[in-house]
Amino acid sequence: MTVGVVMGSDSDWPVMKAAAEALEEFDLPYEADVVSAHRMPQDMIAYGSEAASRGLKVIIAGAGGAAHLPGMLAAVTPLPVIGVPVPLKYLDGMDSLLSIAQMPAGVPVATVAIGNARNAGLLAVRILAASDPELRERMEDFQRDLHAQAKRKGERLRRA
Amino acid sequence: MTVGVVMGSDSDWPVMKAAAEALEEFDLPYEADVVSAHRMPQDMIAYGSEAASRGLKVIIAGAGGAAHLPGMLAAVTPLPVIGVPVPLKYLDGMDSLLSIAQMPAGVPVATVAIGNARNAGLLAVRILAASDPELRERMEDFQRDLHAQAKRKGERLRRA
Amino acid sequence: MTVGVVMGSDSDWPVMKAAAEALEEFDLPYEADVVSAHRMPQDMIAYGSEAASRGLKVIIAGAGGAAHLPGMLAAVTPLPVIGVPVPLKYLDGMDSLLSIAQMPAGVPVATVAIGNARNAGLLAVRILAASDPELRERMEDFQRDLHAQAKRKGERLRRA
Amino acid sequence: MTVGVVMGSDSDWPVMKAAAEALEEFDLPYEADVVSAHRMPQDMIAYGSEAASRGLKVIIAGAGGAAHLPGMLAAVTPLPVIGVPVPLKYLDGMDSLLSIAQMPAGVPVATVAIGNARNAGLLAVRILAASDPELRERMEDFQRDLHAQAKRKGERLRRA
Amino acid sequence: MTVGVVMGSDSDWPVMKAAAEALEEFDLPYEADVVSAHRMPQDMIAYGSEAASRGLKVIIAGAGGAAHLPGMLAAVTPLPVIGVPVPLKYLDGMDSLLSIAQMPAGVPVATVAIGNARNAGLLAVRILAASDPELRERMEDFQRDLHAQAKRKGERLRRA
Amino acid sequence: MTVGVVMGSDSDWPVMKAAAEALEEFDLPYEADVVSAHRMPQDMIAYGSEAASRGLKVIIAGAGGAAHLPGMLAAVTPLPVIGVPVPLKYLDGMDSLLSIAQMPAGVPVATVAIGNARNAGLLAVRILAASDPELRERMEDFQRDLHAQAKRKGERLRRA
Amino acid sequence: MTVGVVMGSDSDWPVMKAAAEALEEFDLPYEADVVSAHRMPQDMIAYGSEAASRGLKVIIAGAGGAAHLPGMLAAVTPLPVIGVPVPLKYLDGMDSLLSIAQMPAGVPVATVAIGNARNAGLLAVRILAASDPELRERMEDFQRDLHAQAKRKGERLRRA
Amino acid sequence: MTVGVVMGSDSDWPVMKAAAEALEEFDLPYEADVVSAHRMPQDMIAYGSEAASRGLKVIIAGAGGAAHLPGMLAAVTPLPVIGVPVPLKYLDGMDSLLSIAQMPAGVPVATVAIGNARNAGLLAVRILAASDPELRERMEDFQRDLHAQAKRKGERLRRA
Repeated sequence: MTVGVVMGSDSDWPVMKAAAEALEEFDLPYEADVVSAHRMPQDMIAYGSEAASRGLKVIIAGAGGAAHLPGMLAAVTPLPVIGVPVPLKYLDGMDSLLSIAQMPAGVPVATVAIGNARNAGLLAVRILAASDPELRERMEDFQRDLHAQAKRKGERLRRA
Repeated sequence: MTVGVVMGSDSDWPVMKAAAEALEEFDLPYEADVVSAHRMPQDMIAYGSEAASRGLKVIIAGAGGAAHLPGMLAAVTPLPVIGVPVPLKYLDGMDSLLSIAQMPAGVPVATVAIGNARNAGLLAVRILAASDPELRERMEDFQRDLHAQAKRKGERLRRA
Repeated sequence: MTVGVVMGSDSDWPVMKAAAEALEEFDLPYEADVVSAHRMPQDMIAYGSEAASRGLKVIIAGAGGAAHLPGMLAAVTPLPVIGVPVPLKYLDGMDSLLSIAQMPAGVPVATVAIGNARNAGLLAVRILAASDPELRERMEDFQRDLHAQAKRKGERLRRA
Repeated sequence: MTVGVVMGSDSDWPVMKAAAEALEEFDLPYEADVVSAHRMPQDMIAYGSEAASRGLKVIIAGAGGAAHLPGMLAAVTPLPVIGVPVPLKYLDGMDSLLSIAQMPAGVPVATVAIGNARNAGLLAVRILAASDPELRERMEDFQRDLHAQAKRKGERLRRA
Repeated sequence: MTVGVVMGSDSDWPVMKAAAEALEEFDLPYEADVVSAHRMPQDMIAYGSEAASRGLKVIIAGAGGAAHLPGMLAAVTPLPVIGVPVPLKYLDGMDSLLSIAQMPAGVPVATVAIGNARNAGLLAVRILAASDPELRERMEDFQRDLHAQAKRKGERLRRA
Repeated sequence: MTVGVVMGSDSDWPVMKAAAEALEEFDLPYEADVVSAHRMPQDMIAYGSEAASRGLKVIIAGAGGAAHLPGMLAAVTPLPVIGVPVPLKYLDGMDSLLSIAQMPAGVPVATVAIGNARNAGLLAVRILAASDPELRERMEDFQRDLHAQAKRKGERLRRA
Repeated sequence: MTVGVVMGSDSDWPVMKAAAEALEEFDLPYEADVVSAHRMPQDMIAYGSEAASRGLKVIIAGAGGAAHLPGMLAAVTPLPVIGVPVPLKYLDGMDSLLSIAQMPAGVPVATVAIGNARNAGLLAVRILAASDPELRERMEDFQRDLHAQAKRKGERLRRA
Repeated sequence: MTVGVVMGSDSDWPVMKAAAEALEEFDLPYEADVVSAHRMPQDMIAYGSEAASRGLKVIIAGAGGAAHLPGMLAAVTPLPVIGVPVPLKYLDGMDSLLSIAQMPAGVPVATVAIGNARNAGLLAVRILAASDPELRERMEDFQRDLHAQAKRKGERLRRA
C-alpha cells in the first residue's frame, strides 16, 4: 500500500471515498480504514507510528467538528499527512477546517477544502509524483483533460 | 494530587496559571505540566491513561489553534476533562474554541470561555464539590464574596 | 434525583433527550424540566438555588440563541452546570455557543458541542464518577465499547 | 429617576458612561449602578422587578461576553430594555452582540451597536420623547445639530 | 395610527406580519407598508420625515442583506425605530443584523433578533407602555401568561 | 468634476484620501465631500440625485459599520457607485463590507476591499477608461509599472 | 460584443445567467463563456489580455469558493471587472465573497452581493452609461420602474 | 533548486522566511522569489509552468487577502503546491485562509495555518522525505528533538 485513507468514523466514508476514487484513477494502491482519534486513540497512535515502516508514503485523514485525526497522525509519523475537513450537521465545516489547518509550528498538516476529499487524493498523487517522473506525466495528462473538459463546457455554453 | 493542569506549551502558562491560582484559593492540590498532544503524543496518551489510577480526579487542559489536547486526553481517561481555549496571535481564540468544544458524541470536553483559565479552576472545584459538602460550602462562600464585591462596586459607582 | 436536565422550552426536548438517554444508560436518576430563564426567571432562580439542597449533584441546561439559562443557573448554584448550545433556525447554534461558553471569570459553565446533549449526559457521568469508583469503571467499560464499535466499523470498511 | 443605566461590572463604566452623558445632554435624570446577572442574580431580579414601580421608564444595560444582563432584566420588567454589547478582550464584541440581540420571542431587548452606549442613551431619549412633545422637539434640535456639524465637516474637507 | 410597520419589499411580509400580530394582541393601531430605502428612497425619506407629525409613535422596519431601511428612517425621524434583520437566502441574516445594529453614534436603531418580528412588536408595546400605565399592566399580564405557559410545558414534560 | 469622492464623516478621510490620490495620478478631476447618509440624509439624496446632471461620471463612497452611504447613493443616481468598506474600531470592517456589498437586486454597488480606497480610485479610472482609449492606455502603462515594480522586488529578494 | 460574461464552470450558469438577462433588458450585446482560472489558466490569461482589443468594455466574472477568476482577469486587462461571488455547497458564499473582494492595492475588482449576478449586469449597464447619455436615460427609466413596482407592492400590502 | 519559496510581495518575506529557515535546517536547496499573481500574471504562469522542468519538486507560495498565488500556481504545475495564508491588516488572515484552502476539485493546494510558513517548510521536507529514506530519518530526528524540547519545558514548569 502506498496511501492510507483513514477517517474518524464510517459515516465520513461518503465524503472520503472521493479520495480513494482519485487514487484509483492513477492506479495508486491504497488502504481505507476507520482510525478514530477519539474512540481508539492508541490504535490511532499505532497506525501513525507504523505507517512509514509499513511502506505508506502519504496519509489522507478526514475528520469533522473538533477534527483531531489529521493533526494527531502528523504528530506520530514523518510522512506527509493530508487533512480533509468533513462538514457535519452544523457550521458547514468551518470548525473542521480550523481544527485541521491551524496546527502549531513543528507539526504540519496539508489541509484541503471543506468536504473536498477528491483534492486530497489528487494532492497525494502530486506528492508521489514529485519523485516519480512517470506519475508526474500522468498528472500532466490529467490536467490536460481538465483543461479540455473546461473548454468543451465553454463551447456548449457559447452554443446554448 | 487531585487536579492536573496541563498545557501544550509553556507559552500557555501565562494564561493557564489562573487555573492553578483558583485551585490554590480552595487549597486543592494540583500538578502543572507541559503535555503536548502534537510534540509528545505518546506521553500525552500515557498521562491521560494513568491519570485516574494516579489519583487525579479532574484534568484541566489548555491549548490554542488546532487545540487537540483536551479532546485527546478525554479520549484516554474516564475523568472529566476541562478545556481552556488559549487565544493565539490570530483569530482571537475562535479556532481554539471550536477545536475544543465541537467534540463528537461519546467523548465530552467541558469547555470554558476563551482565555478564561480561572473558570476552568473554579469548574474543577465545583466538580469536586459535587461529592464533598465541605468544599461546596467553600464554593458558596466564594459566591457570597463575588456577590459582596459586585455590591461594593455598585456602591462606589453610585457615589462617583 | 442526581442530575437535573432542564431547558428553556419543550421545543428543546428533541435535542435534550439525548442527555437523558445517556444518563439512563448509566442508571443515573434524573429529572427533566422546563426552566426558562426568560419566561420564568424567578422559578429559574429558585430551581438553581435549591438544586444542591434537594440533592442534585449536576445540572444540565440546554438553551438556544441568546442562551442565558446555563449561565444564570451557574450564578445561583455551587453545583457544576453543563451547558448545551441548542441550534435554532438561524446561525447554526453559533449564537448559542458563544452565549453559553463566554462566561465571565467567577461563574463557569461546562460547555459541550452545539446540539450535542449526549455529551452533556456523558460529562455528567464523568463528573459523578470522579468520586465514585464503580461508576468510573462503567465509564471505562463504555469507552471500551466505543473502541470496539469503532474497530468493527473499520473492519467493515476494509472488507467493503 | 427616569432611566436606569446598569452594567455587569464597574469595568464596563468607561464604555457605559457615554449613555449617561447622552441623558445628561437632554437633562434626563438617571441612576448608574452595577447590577451583575452572574454575581448578584437575586439583586438583579429585584432591580428589574421593582424598576417600573420605582418610576423608571427605560433601562439601559451593558454587558460583555456571555452578556445576560439585558435579557434577564427584560424578563422581569415590562419596561423597554436597551442592551449595549460591551466588547471584551477577545472577539471584538461579537459574542456580546449575539448574546444580547438573539432573544427568544416574547422577551425583546433593544440592541444597539457594539460599544455604542451613546446610542443607547439617545434611544432612551427617543423612547421617552414618543410621548413627550417637548422632548421630541429637543431630539429634533439635536438632529439639526448633527446635520450642521456634518455640513461643517464637509466644508472643511472641501477647503482642505 | 400609532405604529408604522414597514419593510423593503412585500417578500418580507411573511417575516414581518408577526410584528403586526403582536400589536393586534395589544389592540394597538398600526399601518403596514412597503417603504424601500433602495427602490423608493425619496418616499422613504418622506415617510420617515412625516411619521411623527402624522401621529406615529414608533416605527418598526424590517430589511435584509445590506439592510438600510431602519437606519435611514432613524436618520429622518425623532421617533424610536425598531429594526428587524430579515434573513435572506445566504448568510442566515448575519449581514442584515450587522447592517442594522452597527449604526454610528447619533442615530440609534433598536435592533431585535434575526427574523424575530414578534419581538419588534412587543418592544413597540413596551415603548408605548413606558408612558401608559394601563398598557404596562397589559404587558405585565402578557408576561404572566408567558410564565404560565412555560410552567405548563414543564408539567407536561415532567409527566411524559 | 468627473468623480465624486464622498464619505460619511471627515474621520474617514485618512482612509479615503487614497482614492483621491489615485485619481490625481491619472489627472482626473474630482471633488471630495462629507455626505452623511445618517446625519444629512436629505443632502445625501440631493447629492446623489444631482450627480449625473452636474457632470459626475462615477461616485466613490466610503462608510463604516452600518455603512449605508454607497447603497443609498446608488438608489438615487444612475451612475456607477463604488463602495469602500471603512474599518472601524471593532469587527475589522466585516460589518462595513457586508453592509455595502449585500445590496438587493436592482441597485448595485461596486464594492472593493476593506479599507482599500486606492482600489476604488483605480476602479473609477478603469470605468472612465472603458470609453476613453487614451485613459485606457494610461491604465495599461500603470499596470506595466506595477509589473516592473514587482519584478524589481523579486530581484532584490533574490539578491538578499 | 460589449460585455463578456464568464464563469469558472458551466455549473455557475444558473447563477450567472441573471447577469446576461439584465444586459438583454438593456439590449447590450454580450458573450457568455466558461473561462476557468484553475482548469484553463493560459486561456483565461489570453481571454483577459485580448478583451480590450476585441472591443469588450466590461467583464463580468463569476466564481465560487477560492474564487480567483475575477481577480486574475483584472490583473491582465485594463477594463473594469465585475466579480460575482457564487455560493457553493458550504459557507454560503462567504469564501467566494472574500476571495473576490479582498484584492490588493493596484488591481481592483468591483464586487457585488453573493449570488447576485443580476446586479453585476446592472452595474455593467451603469458603467457603460457613464459615457452614454441615452443608456443613462434608460437606466433612469429602469429605476423609475423599480420605484413604481415597489409603490404597487405597498398598495397591495396596505389593501390586504 | 529543490523547493521554490514564492510570495506575492516582498512585504510577505517577514512571514515567509520561516519557510526558508526550515528548509535550511534540513539542508534543502531552495530559491526565494516575488511572483505576484496580480502584478505579474504572465511571469507567474511561466514560473509555475516551468517549475517542474527546472527541477523543482515542491512550491511553497504565500499570499494574503484575496490570495490567488498558491491556487494559480497549482493550476499550471503538476508539482505539489503548499499555500501559506499571510495575515494582512484586517480579518486576521481569515480571507487569506479561505482564498487558499477552498480550491475546486481538480486543483489541490496543501494549506497550512495562518502565518505559519515554518510548517510550510516542514511539510515540504515531509513531501520530499516520502521518497528519500535518509531525509525521513532526519525528519524523525527533528520530531525527537521537538519531543525532547517539550519534555524539558514540562520539567522547567514542574520545578517552577
